[in-house]
Amino acid sequence: MSNAVTRREALAAGTVLLGGAAAAQRTPVHVPPPPGKKLGWALVGLGKLTIEELLPAFAKCEKSRVAALVSGVPEKAKALAARYGVPEKHIYDYDGFDRVKDDPAVDVVYVVLPNSLHAEYTVRAAKAGKHVFCEKPMAPTSKECRGMIAACREAGRRLMIAYRLHHEPHHLRAVDLAKGKDIGGVQLVVADLTQQVPPGTWRTNRAMGGGGPVPDIGIYCLNEARMLLGEEPAEVRATTFKPKDDPRFGDVEQRCLFTLSFPSGAQANCSCDYGLDDVSQFTMIGPDGSARMDNAFRYRGLKLTTTVRGIRRVTELAQIDQFAAEIDHFSLSILENKPHKTPGEEGLRDVTVIEAIYEAARSGKPVGLGHKEAAR
Amino acid sequence: MSNAVTRREALAAGTVLLGGAAAAQRTPVHVPPPPGKKLGWALVGLGKLTIEELLPAFAKCEKSRVAALVSGVPEKAKALAARYGVPEKHIYDYDGFDRVKDDPAVDVVYVVLPNSLHAEYTVRAAKAGKHVFCEKPMAPTSKECRGMIAACREAGRRLMIAYRLHHEPHHLRAVDLAKGKDIGGVQLVVADLTQQVPPGTWRTNRAMGGGGPVPDIGIYCLNEARMLLGEEPAEVRATTFKPKDDPRFGDVEQRCLFTLSFPSGAQANCSCDYGLDDVSQFTMIGPDGSARMDNAFRYRGLKLTTTVRGIRRVTELAQIDQFAAEIDHFSLSILENKPHKTPGEEGLRDVTVIEAIYEAARSGKPVGLGHKEAAR
Repeated sequence: MSNAVTRREALAAGTVLLGGAAAAQRTPVHVPPPPGKKLGWALVGLGKLTIEELLPAFAKCEKSRVAALVSGVPEKAKALAARYGVPEKHIYDYDGFDRVKDDPAVDVVYVVLPNSLHAEYTVRAAKAGKHVFCEKPMAPTSKECRGMIAACREAGRRLMIAYRLHHEPHHLRAVDLAKGKDIGGVQLVVADLTQQVPPGTWRTNRAMGGGGPVPDIGIYCLNEARMLLGEEPAEVRATTFKPKDDPRFGDVEQRCLFTLSFPSGAQANCSCDYGLDDVSQFTMIGPDGSARMDNAFRYRGLKLTTTVRGIRRVTELAQIDQFAAEIDHFSLSILENKPHKTPGEEGLRDVTVIEAIYEAARSGKPVGLGHKEAAR
Repeated sequence: MSNAVTRREALAAGTVLLGGAAAAQRTPVHVPPPPGKKLGWALVGLGKLTIEELLPAFAKCEKSRVAALVSGVPEKAKALAARYGVPEKHIYDYDGFDRVKDDPAVDVVYVVLPNSLHAEYTVRAAKAGKHVFCEKPMAPTSKECRGMIAACREAGRRLMIAYRLHHEPHHLRAVDLAKGKDIGGVQLVVADLTQQVPPGTWRTNRAMGGGGPVPDIGIYCLNEARMLLGEEPAEVRATTFKPKDDPRFGDVEQRCLFTLSFPSGAQANCSCDYGLDDVSQFTMIGPDGSARMDNAFRYRGLKLTTTVRGIRRVTELAQIDQFAAEIDHFSLSILENKPHKTPGEEGLRDVTVIEAIYEAARSGKPVGLGHKEAAR
């Protein structure tokens, strides 16, 4: 019987232990999952992102389907469940969320709640035996991040943080450029993300957001710099600005400018702002060339312009559904038992830097991060 | 006789004191200078900028002509004088420069020397009774700048610092946008200027350059931010980077990242680097829109892209000869006795901020500039 269970588990993981000679050698043979096999996802939190981006994205997924909805507003959950073909028995409210443990239709829980609730629902999902896919920032504090990682490890479940740009073709091309010889190695990244935040949301509530624009949108600049440079910042400088006359910014800052210094000598100069019109861009510069991304952190319309030895090229790649890509990546990694990108440790690294950014802004001094020796 | 001299002086300044009734009222009547009248310029320093840009620019000037050359290399001076039609008697070496006092062909002295020599030659030119047009940065120290301003004031001569972008159509349009209502007022400027500096020039000699990339190219980011925002920074933060293995950067830093905070709450996040490929750009962002300039600080190829309420427009204006424009602006201001742009006080403001940038980089702390109340 134990052998049968092992087989079943291995099959689910995309690996079959064959009998006979193969069994004697104990060589796992990879067999891809059935083409039609889709993992069931429970979406926790039915806000704007879920309604406008995530639910539509599942229609484009090949390995993932919406299996359950979790919401505090029954009417909204019922209406969305009907539209997306989710039987009503797979609707949960927050109090009853832990019953998802007994719902075999659910393989993955996607936490799309305000930042301050990420840790709680990640831990509850892991305890319910589900893999967890959690929005970024991972949590308001690095302590919570560590708890999330530990809970998933204890439960033997996977944890992935939703960094959609790690799957986006223009960003993947930018990383190739950064690692390659054309521009001679990136030494400077400048990145800016500004947008108008509406009043009265959790985004301008420090307790719920874990900060202001830094964890919400500054994280894109930060994560991009880390991704392009392939190393961890050793030191952080920052300054924040809070206007006196804008009621949105009583609790959180409007703006943060921060500088990351990396062990190699590379640096990143970043800005994020909650009170300005949309700007979303980065430029990476090396000794022999540079590349700029317009609409860099948006869902659509990304454009990569490279200049190498004076020759300017615009690279136009497929504008994919970034949400479908990251969702299917996680499902496929589970189905095929392969590593997945941006696990909890990646989310923790960003949150650790964000804590240092706020400390630097408070103190007016550079804050070290203990990565004097090149990390990773 | 004294009356005749007054007339002649007034005529040179574009103003005629008429006799009879007008004289009784002592009302100056503006009479434009003769259309063909050109002021004579002495170019002090025959380096790359003079040879490649300035001498050709004079061919496009309507109010300015090359009247004299000052150089330490007689063969070069003679060859250029022959090519540009300057009689040999108007060639000076540095020791003999003060004889320009007795050269009536010279109205303006253009100082195109290494930064550390700007003060000396500005003062000598003023003492020789000439108007002075001086390259930026004005001088390595604010003390020298004050001396230059005082010397020109005492001599009753004009002093203009060569900020060519104050005459460039795309920049003038950007200033109009920044002051206007379309983008709702600029609150954030991000500006980057990077280029590879060749080894062994005065640009990487701190004593001759007055610093590294900050006074030489960072000044463009700084001046642009001040021009767009129309106020003076109250506080400066900065960090510099010097690589261990690049012989160009034994004396000066390779890179400086600096942040300017203005009394209104606006900020500028800037980078300059002497060891990276060419990037020359700024973005200004307001609550309702933004504008980006590509090739922002270059001689040619500038492009302004504005985005207002989601609508993106590329503004293509004339690509003028920026050097001819600033040179003729100064000549015309003298001929017509009108104020000129970017006088010595403008150069002094930038140098004062540059001193604060280096102090901030050295100390790792924000440095105040005494502009807590909105300046200008």
